[in-house]
Amino acid sequence: MARSRTWSSRATVDLARRDAERIYVGKEKDNHALAQDEINALMVRLALAGKRVVRLKGGDPFIFGRGGEEIDSLAAQGIAFEVVPGVTAAAGAASYAGIPLTHRDYAHACVFVTGHLKDGAAQLDWASLVRPRQTIVVYMGVSGLAAICAGLVEHGLAATTPAALVEKATLPGQRVIEGNLASLPSVATAQGARAPALLIVGEVVRLRSRLGWFRPLGAEAALDQKG
Amino acid sequence: MARSRTWSSRATVDLARRDAERIYVGKEKDNHALAQDEINALMVRLALAGKRVVRLKGGDPFIFGRGGEEIDSLAAQGIAFEVVPGVTAAAGAASYAGIPLTHRDYAHACVFVTGHLKDGAAQLDWASLVRPRQTIVVYMGVSGLAAICAGLVEHGLAATTPAALVEKATLPGQRVIEGNLASLPSVATAQGARAPALLIVGEVVRLRSRLGWFRPLGAEAALDQKG
Repeated sequence: MARSRTWSSRATVDLARRDAERIYVGKEKDNHALAQDEINALMVRLALAGKRVVRLKGGDPFIFGRGGEEIDSLAAQGIAFEVVPGVTAAAGAASYAGIPLTHRDYAHACVFVTGHLKDGAAQLDWASLVRPRQTIVVYMGVSGLAAICAGLVEHGLAATTPAALVEKATLPGQRVIEGNLASLPSVATAQGARAPALLIVGEVVRLRSRLGWFRPLGAEAALDQKG
Repeated sequence: MARSRTWSSRATVDLARRDAERIYVGKEKDNHALAQDEINALMVRLALAGKRVVRLKGGDPFIFGRGGEEIDSLAAQGIAFEVVPGVTAAAGAASYAGIPLTHRDYAHACVFVTGHLKDGAAQLDWASLVRPRQTIVVYMGVSGLAAICAGLVEHGLAATTPAALVEKATLPGQRVIEGNLASLPSVATAQGARAPALLIVGEVVRLRSRLGWFRPLGAEAALDQKG
């Protein structure tokens, strides 16, 4: 199957006028077309050259999207800009996995963090995460999955707390790997989970058995079929 | 000025086919057209009657939208459904107020809660909220504003922590009232703040002085002009 960015971006980019110049600056793990400061500088340079610049991103620019840094570069040069909010990955993954992030009976709060590892360890504020009636969403949660699940248990969450890894959320190749904090890392490894993926932890994950509705197309869907 | 729901909903509802039956089930504080269980039952009844039903909501259905409860009613009757994710109020308010919810230098996490009062007090898990480098977004944050700001300070946040109330986020009548945890409640009262409004608390609020870009139209905009 084609890489997800190919599928998801092209249809959107095709909406631009035919004579628009298209510059790919996307990021994939360990394969960034441009570093963040190069993206910032490029936008400034093009805008100062009189171009009308659209910076297209997946998700929401102000939730782990580094939109703040990008427009800060513009503001510093007196360049006018607008920001269009988007469907953040947590919302997309939740809807397409059938997992409400909040629910009157199970979760009165949700917290979003990133799972990036620094020196091999997840730098998370564990005390704020291991609270009752709260859903945890970890963006970029694949590479740190084992460390994150272990850390949550070590700091007080039950090992039986339901957890789901949503791979390629909302795309035709979406796959949801379910388990709990004890089982999910080994299940995900066995199934070859890889980025992009979002980790959702909390009692709301149980609702998926009733509320899951999206049937992805393609080969990978076979792994996601429910009995 | 017209009520926000009138402005925001009509343009969207007008996208439906002309012969579609339109039923208003919206909610405003203390003025719900239908109770939640009546909405659930109505969807079930119409679907079982063979109608194709669109339940249109503001924001995202799975983030304080009670979408989980609604589709649970459908699933219990074996009614097929799809869920379309949306721009949750926190993302809309953040973009239009110029306040990134995460930022490499200021906030590595964001947490969403509701500010509804129960018996006159905010029932919040204060320990999870008063953490460093975390942005707090309180949905429905007006009526409990004073109690919430006081509670955050009582449980450890500095009284000088920046805070902003975003009223009618993303609408032409948007107004942003800025202050800190000590000053915001009295400033908001003095300026007559009312629902719908979202409270954003954290260092990222300071970025608005550089990154705020949206200039609302209409009378209320005068209160939001920056020097």
